[in-house]
Amino acid sequence: MSASDTQTKIAFLRGLRAVRTFRPEPVSQEALDDILLVARWSGSASNRQPWAFIVIKDRAMLDALATKGYAGHLTSAPLAIAIVMDGEAGRQEHEIWDEGRLAERIMLAAAAHRLGSCIGWLQGDGINEAKELLGVPAERRLRTIISIGHIDEPAQRARPKPPQARKPLTELVHEERW
Amino acid sequence: MSASDTQTKIAFLRGLRAVRTFRPEPVSQEALDDILLVARWSGSASNRQPWAFIVIKDRAMLDALATKGYAGHLTSAPLAIAIVMDGEAGRQEHEIWDEGRLAERIMLAAAAHRLGSCIGWLQGDGINEAKELLGVPAERRLRTIISIGHIDEPAQRARPKPPQARKPLTELVHEERW
Repeated sequence: MSASDTQTKIAFLRGLRAVRTFRPEPVSQEALDDILLVARWSGSASNRQPWAFIVIKDRAMLDALATKGYAGHLTSAPLAIAIVMDGEAGRQEHEIWDEGRLAERIMLAAAAHRLGSCIGWLQGDGINEAKELLGVPAERRLRTIISIGHIDEPAQRARPKPPQARKPLTELVHEERW
Repeated sequence: MSASDTQTKIAFLRGLRAVRTFRPEPVSQEALDDILLVARWSGSASNRQPWAFIVIKDRAMLDALATKGYAGHLTSAPLAIAIVMDGEAGRQEHEIWDEGRLAERIMLAAAAHRLGSCIGWLQGDGINEAKELLGVPAERRLRTIISIGHIDEPAQRARPKPPQARKPLTELVHEERW
């Protein structure tokens, strides 16, 4: 691995952004296979791999799920992956943490294929309603549905930018102690 | 971006592994700067960036922290990054999830520099003891300390492999519904 390979990877990691507007064309099976491959190889506490994935392309289902929380972007996405966690008693914190890792990897794998992605977060009654729509057993954890698709670049550029994109490192980093 | 760039990135994401044995030489400032850059640009719920980082190189501190949970690998690491979350009331689930995303990115940024990394997980009384050692305010969340260093390849290869590295996709993937 050369210094330029390293910098390509750092720029790739640094550059991940949420994308909320997609073009209608489908995601290729090749890209989906790679995304699922990366998801499958995610690390997890004690290597339990406490997850399963629902791959959703059905337009009516995506539109219905879009109303179940902070997930409006599902209405323009041609594809979504719902993350279903085992919901094992006493392991909630580990599962939430592992779900975050997994979601980040799914978004990065999509970006490797120049696809955009956005986290959909089910909320309130929408959690159980989404479980019913998808047939997910009540005891499982279902919180995250990730939109994936080709980026609608003009629409994405037209979105308002946050006033402070990220805090400066001087505010974030402590040396040796708090 | 060419097809080979895409496949390089997918292989990079797929290939991340926990590394628990390190060589003693220090991590370069350049690599640390890149890791913190990637950490800083992590996404978070509502872009709150509810985190801070403690960069720890002090040998005695690393050895002391190693006893505070599942973190024995800190004894061979030349560097660790402790993740301190805001601990905001009512946002615990978001913070845990965002912490997982952030940790995955720190590990990937280390891997981009050919460094190994491992998640240290504070446990039980070790959580508050680690807060005291590091001077972290009691109300903050401190659970994760990530070891980072040059990989001790022979020691890493000698470690026992898990019997089932990862579940097959046929067990994990559902089409359209559960």
